[in-house]
Amino acid sequence: MDSRIRRHAEIIVQQAIDLQPGENVVVSMPPVAEDLRVALYEEIGKVGANPVMLARGDRGIGTDRAARAYLRAVDEDDISEPEHLLKLFEHTDAAVVARPHENVSEQSDVDTETGAAFAAAYRDVLNARLETKWCLTHYPAPADAQSAEMSTEAYEDFVFGAMNKDWDAVREHQAQMVEILDPAEEVRIVSGDTTDVTMSVEDMVTLNDWGTNNLPAGEVFTAPVPDSVEGEVTFDKPVYHQAREIQGAWLKFEDGEVVDFSAEQNEDVLEGILTTDEGSNRLGELGIGMNRDIDRFTYNMLFDEKMGDTVHMALGRAYPATVGEGVEQNDSAKHVDMIVDMAEDSYIEVDGEVVQRNGTFRFEDGFEE
Amino acid sequence: MDSRIRRHAEIIVQQAIDLQPGENVVVSMPPVAEDLRVALYEEIGKVGANPVMLARGDRGIGTDRAARAYLRAVDEDDISEPEHLLKLFEHTDAAVVARPHENVSEQSDVDTETGAAFAAAYRDVLNARLETKWCLTHYPAPADAQSAEMSTEAYEDFVFGAMNKDWDAVREHQAQMVEILDPAEEVRIVSGDTTDVTMSVEDMVTLNDWGTNNLPAGEVFTAPVPDSVEGEVTFDKPVYHQAREIQGAWLKFEDGEVVDFSAEQNEDVLEGILTTDEGSNRLGELGIGMNRDIDRFTYNMLFDEKMGDTVHMALGRAYPATVGEGVEQNDSAKHVDMIVDMAEDSYIEVDGEVVQRNGTFRFEDGFEE
Repeated sequence: MDSRIRRHAEIIVQQAIDLQPGENVVVSMPPVAEDLRVALYEEIGKVGANPVMLARGDRGIGTDRAARAYLRAVDEDDISEPEHLLKLFEHTDAAVVARPHENVSEQSDVDTETGAAFAAAYRDVLNARLETKWCLTHYPAPADAQSAEMSTEAYEDFVFGAMNKDWDAVREHQAQMVEILDPAEEVRIVSGDTTDVTMSVEDMVTLNDWGTNNLPAGEVFTAPVPDSVEGEVTFDKPVYHQAREIQGAWLKFEDGEVVDFSAEQNEDVLEGILTTDEGSNRLGELGIGMNRDIDRFTYNMLFDEKMGDTVHMALGRAYPATVGEGVEQNDSAKHVDMIVDMAEDSYIEVDGEVVQRNGTFRFEDGFEE
Repeated sequence: MDSRIRRHAEIIVQQAIDLQPGENVVVSMPPVAEDLRVALYEEIGKVGANPVMLARGDRGIGTDRAARAYLRAVDEDDISEPEHLLKLFEHTDAAVVARPHENVSEQSDVDTETGAAFAAAYRDVLNARLETKWCLTHYPAPADAQSAEMSTEAYEDFVFGAMNKDWDAVREHQAQMVEILDPAEEVRIVSGDTTDVTMSVEDMVTLNDWGTNNLPAGEVFTAPVPDSVEGEVTFDKPVYHQAREIQGAWLKFEDGEVVDFSAEQNEDVLEGILTTDEGSNRLGELGIGMNRDIDRFTYNMLFDEKMGDTVHMALGRAYPATVGEGVEQNDSAKHVDMIVDMAEDSYIEVDGEVVQRNGTFRFEDGFEE
C-alpha cells in the first residue's frame, strides 16, 4: 500500500476525528477507496474503537451504481426515511466520509425530482451524522483524476500533497488571518475591473479550517451580514452544479441581494440557484483559500475552495458556527461556493487596510502595501 | 449485467425476504458482489423499501482486508460491542447477507483468540440480525471458484443453477419428505460398511428449506433427540473448520454421545470440536440434502449441505425451530455440519421402512424397495 495512504489514515484518526478507545466509528466510502478503508481500520484497531463500514457513494445509501438503480426504480412517493441508518448515526461517535468515484457521471440519468425527494428523506440522517465528530475527505480515484484532467499518478501527488501536511503549522499560519478577520467590521474584495464587492462581517465568527471536518483543510471563513453585501463579482472558476458547469458567472449585489446576474455558460442553472428560496440570492459564506498545495482547479469543491490565492463566496445557507450570537443567519436549501482568483491584480481590504495583495498576505514576505 | 444476477435478486427480494413497501432493509456483502448489490437495489426500489449497504466480509464489520487490519491492530481487551451496528439491525426489517471472497485466505493471519473475542462482542449484533427476515446467499466470485477448483464461468453456472430454481416446485417436492420425517419416531442411516447410525426424531419438528433464510435452499432437516443416537458414521466429505480440513472423520455414538472418533487428517481439529462443551459431542441436526443441482462439493457449507443424495449431521447446537415443545434442545457454541454420501450402497430407513435407497426417494421414479 502507498505509504501516503497510511499517513492520511493517521491524520484522520488521530487529528481530524480524534478517535478514543471504545468509541463507535463509521467508515463511509466506496470500494474504490479500499486501501484507505484498510488503513483506517488498522488505525481504528490501534485506538481500540468499534468500526462499521458503509459502502457509500454520493447518495449515502450505497455505491453510486446501486443508488442509481434504486433511485430509478423507486416511486418518488414511496421514498421514506431510512430509520435504521438514522439509528446507526445516532449511536455513532465519529464518522469518516469520502466520495471518490468510479464514474463521476454514474447518477447522470437519475431524475432530479426523485433525487430531491431522497435528499429530503435523508435530511435527519445527514444531521445525525453532522452531530458526530465527522471528517469529509477524499481518495484519488482514477475517475476523479479524469474529472481533473490529470493522470492518476499526478492526481495522487496532488491529492496527497494537499492532505498530508503539517497541520499544526497550517493552523498557526492561518491564525494570523483569523486575527485580522474575526474582529473586523468590513471586508472589500477587488480583482481586476470585474470584481469589487464590500460586505460587513461585524459580530460574525471567523473559523480556522486546519484539518478536522475537512481534509484537505486550508481556509479561513466567516459569514457576511446578509443585507450588507454591495457591489459586483465575477467568478473566475467554473461552478459545477447539478452535473452542469456554470462559466463566467457575474453577480451584482444591492442591500445584500443579487439584483442582476449573468453567465457565459449555463446561465439558467445560475438562475435556478438564485430563485430557489429567499436565502439563495444572498451570500452565506466568505472564505479565503490558503492551501497553496492546491494550485489548480479540479472540479472538487472540497479542494477548489481551499485553493491558495483565492477567495470564495457561497450563495445560500451560512454555517451556524460562523454566525455571531444575535445576528441573522442566512438560511437556504442551497450552499453554492463560487471562486474568485486573487493571484493577480487583486487585493483584500479589511476595515480600510489592504491585508492581501496579489495573493500575498500582510503577514508574509513580499507583501506590498 | 448477467441476467441470472437479476433473477437471483428477484428471488431474494420477492420470495426469501418478502420485502414490503417502507421496510428497512440491509444489503450486507463485499464489493466483489457489486452486480448483485446493484440488482438488489433495483428490486428494493421497485418495492419502495429503504436500503442501506454494509461493506462486509466474513467478520461483518467491513471487507475482509479491512477486518483483518482491524483485528491484527486491536488489543483483544479493547474489543467491545459495536452499539451503532446493533441499533442499525434492531431497526432493520430484512437483511440480505452474502460472503463471497476476494481471497478466501484473507484472514489466515488473524489471531484465533482475537477472532473469538470479536465473535463474542458481535453476538448481540448477530442475534439482532437473526430477528429480521434474513437471507444468507452467495455470489460466484473468482476466489470462491478457486476454492471449488472450478473455472469462474463453470462456477457461475453451478451457483446460479443451484440458486435460480422454481422454488415452489422444490417446496412441493420436499414436502413429501417432510411428511415422512415429521411424524416419524426413528431414523436409520446406512452407507456401505462404514456408516450405520440410528436416532430418534420423536416429537421433533421437520422443516422444509425451500428458499427463505438460505439461497440456495434444498434440504429437509430436523433435530435428533440428543441422547438417542447410536452407532457409527464415516463422513465422506471433508469438514472445513477454522481454516483446516478434516478428512475421513469417523464417529461412534452411544446414548447420544460420541464415545470414539478418528480422522485421516486433522484429527486434532475434530477433537477440538468434540471437546468444546457438553453439547458439542452430541448431534444437533439431521439434514437431508435434496438439491441435485448441487452435484459437487465446493467447500461452501451453504451449498455442500444441500447437495443431492447426501445427508448431513451437525455436531453441536440444534436450531430451536426444529426442537419440539417440551423436548430437550442440544445446546453448544458449535454447529459443525458433516456430510455422508448416500448415492451408492446406502439407504435411509424411517420407522423400519426404507424411504430412500442409493439417493432415490420412495416418492420418486426408480425407487427400489
